[in-house]
Amino acid sequence: MAIATTSIPDLCTAARCASRRLAAVDTDVKDAALHAIADALIARAPEIIAANQLDMAAGREEEIGAALLDRLSLDPARIETIVAGVRTIAALPDPVGEVIEGRRLANGLDVRKVRVPLGVVAVVYEARPNVTIDAAALCLKAGNAIVLRGSSIAAHSNAVLVAIAAQAAVAAGLPEGCVGLVAGGGREELAELATQNDTLDLIIPRGGEGLKAALKAVATVPVIYAASGNCHVYVDASADLAAAERVVLNAKAQRPGVCNAAETLLVHKDAAAELLPGMLRLLGEAGVLIRGDEHTLALAGDPPGAVLEPATTEDWETEYLALTLAVRVVGSLDDAIDHIGRYGSGHSEAILTRDAAAVRAFQRGVDAACVYVNASTRFTDGGEFGMGAEIGNSTQKLHARGPIGLRELCTAKYLVEGDGHVRV
Amino acid sequence: MAIATTSIPDLCTAARCASRRLAAVDTDVKDAALHAIADALIARAPEIIAANQLDMAAGREEEIGAALLDRLSLDPARIETIVAGVRTIAALPDPVGEVIEGRRLANGLDVRKVRVPLGVVAVVYEARPNVTIDAAALCLKAGNAIVLRGSSIAAHSNAVLVAIAAQAAVAAGLPEGCVGLVAGGGREELAELATQNDTLDLIIPRGGEGLKAALKAVATVPVIYAASGNCHVYVDASADLAAAERVVLNAKAQRPGVCNAAETLLVHKDAAAELLPGMLRLLGEAGVLIRGDEHTLALAGDPPGAVLEPATTEDWETEYLALTLAVRVVGSLDDAIDHIGRYGSGHSEAILTRDAAAVRAFQRGVDAACVYVNASTRFTDGGEFGMGAEIGNSTQKLHARGPIGLRELCTAKYLVEGDGHVRV
Repeated sequence: MAIATTSIPDLCTAARCASRRLAAVDTDVKDAALHAIADALIARAPEIIAANQLDMAAGREEEIGAALLDRLSLDPARIETIVAGVRTIAALPDPVGEVIEGRRLANGLDVRKVRVPLGVVAVVYEARPNVTIDAAALCLKAGNAIVLRGSSIAAHSNAVLVAIAAQAAVAAGLPEGCVGLVAGGGREELAELATQNDTLDLIIPRGGEGLKAALKAVATVPVIYAASGNCHVYVDASADLAAAERVVLNAKAQRPGVCNAAETLLVHKDAAAELLPGMLRLLGEAGVLIRGDEHTLALAGDPPGAVLEPATTEDWETEYLALTLAVRVVGSLDDAIDHIGRYGSGHSEAILTRDAAAVRAFQRGVDAACVYVNASTRFTDGGEFGMGAEIGNSTQKLHARGPIGLRELCTAKYLVEGDGHVRV
Repeated sequence: MAIATTSIPDLCTAARCASRRLAAVDTDVKDAALHAIADALIARAPEIIAANQLDMAAGREEEIGAALLDRLSLDPARIETIVAGVRTIAALPDPVGEVIEGRRLANGLDVRKVRVPLGVVAVVYEARPNVTIDAAALCLKAGNAIVLRGSSIAAHSNAVLVAIAAQAAVAAGLPEGCVGLVAGGGREELAELATQNDTLDLIIPRGGEGLKAALKAVATVPVIYAASGNCHVYVDASADLAAAERVVLNAKAQRPGVCNAAETLLVHKDAAAELLPGMLRLLGEAGVLIRGDEHTLALAGDPPGAVLEPATTEDWETEYLALTLAVRVVGSLDDAIDHIGRYGSGHSEAILTRDAAAVRAFQRGVDAACVYVNASTRFTDGGEFGMGAEIGNSTQKLHARGPIGLRELCTAKYLVEGDGHVRV
């Protein structure tokens, strides 16, 4: 396949050329192209599944394991989910051209700050071939060309998906080169891609800590990293305890393997005796293992409602991503804020309270991408936030913090209009 | 002086602690602290000048040259300019707490994205001691702690300025450690500072290409670089030629040593014969040397109105920062846009035209921080744009593009409020 034999610099240069034209493409053309991609994915699903079966067979032979095989696998239902995602992105408002702010200066110059595409975005990812299409649709909608670098274990699937998307996009009026795929998923390709400073504007990694560390070691192109989520739920003295039980259970157990799940429960000492025995029983029934401080262990009931182990400092630092919850009783709201400031990763933090002053203090005192009042940390997600879709979740402070949606895939420029104005 | 003996990690840790408290300080306290700093600078001007004279004497002994001595020098008038700058920043609106966007989700959750301080900003700079106070005032107003690293040739001046600012700020209610100065201006200190990832959120260099290159080689903390400005003025076929003359002269000659000055003039072939002879004469009278393409040389008049030399490709790539202007005649607006896309540094680009379609095409087709219509490129400046002040000018696409003012010294967080909401 032609896509698979282009060198990385050539692929990125083609994307850069495409990006110049793509920046000026109108929304209705971009949306029609996304629907054309969706239609082509449905029409050519048998090709996709055939290619995926080659990857699956190779994966079985290489004994990559059941979990990885599941992530790699595509079937008609999964293709339909991908297609639905593309159509959802087509329906989102176009961020390009949005006027962010504007004013007339004292000298009569009109200044507008408008959103424009970044240019060329590279997305590096692992086994899941659905990322290929999700990422391409988001980047194209925001007017960016995209260079994809997936895992070698999904090479056949990705090649077919990119070929289908690129052909459909170009046939619908988007420029040649707007979607490219790096041939080869090795570390050499990653290093070469991550240093194409003249043609790439941004790299977004979607994958585990290993991928991020590998990228960090070599990248000279700007990268937005999605850090891990060591998220907390704090139950204040004044909390509605029924709501607290509901939110803690949801934040921990509804989907424990994701970055917005809670890892530590902090309980105000004045709420501990009333909350903890029942809370621990509910968590225990949901299969959650508790790592509690001394105070928590003492309030666990007899017999305790959950499996308990004594917590160490390491527990405060750990993102379990599993059915384990660290629990600590704190003396005050300030102690809770201090604990979160010390151990949190700046992802998603929640308070349960009925006290207006506590709401204000928590919102101001906690430095994180998302700060929740009387709601589960699990809502941190572009889709949930009404941004439509996301390409990741940033815990960095620069450029994007929180879900990375269409607006975050853009930059801005100032347009200044006068009638022969000169500076004095 | 105590400030000068603290280790870099300790200085940065103190700044990090201060930043946590500073983020919650109200605007009126911050503004009062800025006025207190201004008052203290006036009251203690003799100390500042005495310290500056030590630096000046050492500089003369080390023969650093007249230009550097001029940049280093402080006198009562320059101190008053610094003080006026601080009071201007105090009068600006506080970016912290601004609601950037917000909505109520379908499930009743209220989401607001609000501006919050970055945390700790380090500013590394060269000879000019006024940067010490300008940068500190901007960072404090945006709720950030600041760590300064100036040049060793300004060590006495900077130490006194920081001591005065820090004492006045703390006396006015800002937290201890909110303004710190790195002892020593060597490359070792730069490398140590640039790797304090646990405590610094951002580094901003203010200085020449040498400083930026030195920082790029060692920094692991995020940096916003202000690239050079290879800026263009394009005179379209339909331009008002009197306005074009005025704008070109201003863009090139009003202050040629700055990044928003024009370096290349592009002229549509249909305007060249009428514009160029007079334009070159005006530029020649202003002392501008012309590096022209063949077409330009042919239209220079006899005798030519300016000193002319033939241009080479190198001229299209050069930021002269001097009274030299490259001039090229282009066949069309598209050719002008292509030239700018190829050689421009994405800083400030201008078109002179009376044609509405050309305005639109130029604004859409030129990818730069600031795109001007019928106005001089010299307006790219935080003060001119009504942002009040700037700490630099970014030609990066991520986080900040264009003037770096108070808003660009902030990040954002999402505040989400519910009444016991859980994700389903």
